[in-house]
Amino acid sequence: MKCEIIAVGTELLLGNIVNTNAQYLSQKLADLGIDVYYHQVVGDNKKRIQEAIINGMKRADILITTGGLGPTDDDLTKEAVSEALGLTLALHQESLDKIVNFFNSIGREMVECNKKQAYIPEGSQILINNNGTAPGVLIEKENKIIVLLPGPPKELMPMFEESVFPYLRKKSKSMIKSKILRVTGVGESTIQEMLNDLFINQTNPTLAPYAKDGEVHLRISAKTEDEKEADCLIAKMEANVRNILKENVYGVDDETLEEVVAKLLMDKNMTIALAESCTGGLIASRLTDIPGVSAVFMNSIVSYSNQSKQQFLGVSEDTIRVYGAVSRETAYEMAEGVQKNSNTNIGLSVTGIAGPDGGSIEKPVGLFYIGLAINGKVETYKHMFAGNRKKIKWTASVRALDAVRRALISI
Amino acid sequence: MKCEIIAVGTELLLGNIVNTNAQYLSQKLADLGIDVYYHQVVGDNKKRIQEAIINGMKRADILITTGGLGPTDDDLTKEAVSEALGLTLALHQESLDKIVNFFNSIGREMVECNKKQAYIPEGSQILINNNGTAPGVLIEKENKIIVLLPGPPKELMPMFEESVFPYLRKKSKSMIKSKILRVTGVGESTIQEMLNDLFINQTNPTLAPYAKDGEVHLRISAKTEDEKEADCLIAKMEANVRNILKENVYGVDDETLEEVVAKLLMDKNMTIALAESCTGGLIASRLTDIPGVSAVFMNSIVSYSNQSKQQFLGVSEDTIRVYGAVSRETAYEMAEGVQKNSNTNIGLSVTGIAGPDGGSIEKPVGLFYIGLAINGKVETYKHMFAGNRKKIKWTASVRALDAVRRALISI
Repeated sequence: MKCEIIAVGTELLLGNIVNTNAQYLSQKLADLGIDVYYHQVVGDNKKRIQEAIINGMKRADILITTGGLGPTDDDLTKEAVSEALGLTLALHQESLDKIVNFFNSIGREMVECNKKQAYIPEGSQILINNNGTAPGVLIEKENKIIVLLPGPPKELMPMFEESVFPYLRKKSKSMIKSKILRVTGVGESTIQEMLNDLFINQTNPTLAPYAKDGEVHLRISAKTEDEKEADCLIAKMEANVRNILKENVYGVDDETLEEVVAKLLMDKNMTIALAESCTGGLIASRLTDIPGVSAVFMNSIVSYSNQSKQQFLGVSEDTIRVYGAVSRETAYEMAEGVQKNSNTNIGLSVTGIAGPDGGSIEKPVGLFYIGLAINGKVETYKHMFAGNRKKIKWTASVRALDAVRRALISI
Repeated sequence: MKCEIIAVGTELLLGNIVNTNAQYLSQKLADLGIDVYYHQVVGDNKKRIQEAIINGMKRADILITTGGLGPTDDDLTKEAVSEALGLTLALHQESLDKIVNFFNSIGREMVECNKKQAYIPEGSQILINNNGTAPGVLIEKENKIIVLLPGPPKELMPMFEESVFPYLRKKSKSMIKSKILRVTGVGESTIQEMLNDLFINQTNPTLAPYAKDGEVHLRISAKTEDEKEADCLIAKMEANVRNILKENVYGVDDETLEEVVAKLLMDKNMTIALAESCTGGLIASRLTDIPGVSAVFMNSIVSYSNQSKQQFLGVSEDTIRVYGAVSRETAYEMAEGVQKNSNTNIGLSVTGIAGPDGGSIEKPVGLFYIGLAINGKVETYKHMFAGNRKKIKWTASVRALDAVRRALISI
């Protein structure tokens, strides 16, 4: 079964709001195993809404519209759909009573224009709105299903869950289940080559890569009639991917890198302190987004000035003078110093040039050194990052957190 | 002129991501006085991308596609558009060189599949991508304009600003010009009341409030044929708003609070050091997003543990024992201590409970104290913030930065 989502609302075309309804419905339809091939967005214009409906009817078995069910003159979805399908609108007394009651319950009188919301295409099914005045509408006609939902997400979402999801669940035989594998340390094109055979031979489940800042998400999607079968197909593909990418897979689904690192620290009861120069507190901020991290995260010395690198981290003046603040040697001493001074198991340091200024031929913008001290033993890593200042900071924070993760999983 | 936006990407149809590109482009096109009547979203399928292009060509003068310019096999926009328009793809050597250089600059070798990104429809214009490997494409054919933009917003937005906006500006006759006044320290409903007369009497320019995390943006929009007239209308409205909101207006347009604070510090040649507990480095990270801030920002001590508050900031053990780590007294000593230890003009401290755990009846989640030491004189501020952990952290960082801003403008 194919479904198409048609959002109605000039505010979407003006960019006043973003089409989160389409995202929500797409996720739910994917879970139901219903394919979505198109989204459309049209304004509050009867002719264009009709055109969208007619185009959608040619391509899909199910049309879901959102918006345009309100009481005002520019709420035109029911009118447009009824005309496109050759149906007339009739007053639905029960709905009118509900609207009148709704206004009574909030101590206001129904204004005349709200009456419009109780007019329903003949022969259609009412979808009760427990969170507003506009009822939804479900029409079955010529082997097609047309569902009209209100625009506000707080009305649309419960109406979909309560009425439309169970209805479609019965109609749909198959379902899609997905799992995301989160990968870092290898780029999208390298992953493409490493997983080439899997990409070429994919049918069910499918495997698709999505590039994110400093990481890549691999989505595995299985289409089956049965949830257990889907789990089984996904598990097999996941095993194949992990077998190739190994420890480059750091997490699944919504798990963030900072969450994985925080969890590893807590599980292994290892405390950490940071010495951040050019990431400027970003790594600390990411780690402290995780509830409960205070058990293992002690402090970060955001040492922007050379003075503070000496004073709080014990980096020697000579090291900075001879090798520079951005050097393997300084990263080494920062990591060692913060671990010692903070009395933690781990000291992580980052020093680099985030730009746009401050680069030179020997030390260009994007050059970073990461230092990782674990119980006195220090490793350093050199990286080159591209992009603007914020992107470079972010990528450096990813690489630094990932260095901790890789060290922790091998302990 | 009419424009239609066609987003390409199966991840949109699966609901993995929300179509923020369509919102962004719609806003920009509205500013240009260009009407948008339809958005479409299609998956990574050549036939359906072509169908979307052909439908769009019937209805609009300008088509803008987003996504599908990547290096992988399911990036098909260029191929589909070329076939729909009867153009062939040819290797663009300059673009290939740029991609090779990009990989060189990050110390990696270009893999074969990236070469695909350098193939361009014949006779088209290249839009330079300064933030990724996929160049954009602009095609003029049969009185239509077709623009192909990359999917990642961080590549799409600068490319649109730098290349497409100026190009379309020349084509469009009427224009909407907007200016945003950024306000913090007063809530949206208070602003609504304070500016009530302005809201009621607005016609051209219009005035609209948008609530953001910890701040409110007031958008002034003038519609004219002439830029000077627009500037004049906007300036008048801006003066009226500023006259009422005074120093609560902290910036305009894209200016961030951290940018304003960094600029004030640099202008007044005042150095700053931070002592962050529950903001966890977020304030330092925001400030260090600003190029050149190293002239005034020395360090931040992200002191999560009580031990580090004593060790690096000199907060007395007694203060923490008697008043607690989250108290006016601790905030005071943190600010005073970091200013003294870091030898700066300003010391800013934040201590609070970001949640979800750690709250009590006397000290609930959301309670924060800010300390501000300026050349030895310390002020403290108490706040209650609502929301989840990340939102509370963010709002605390806004209030703390704003405390510095207000102090600096009165010096």
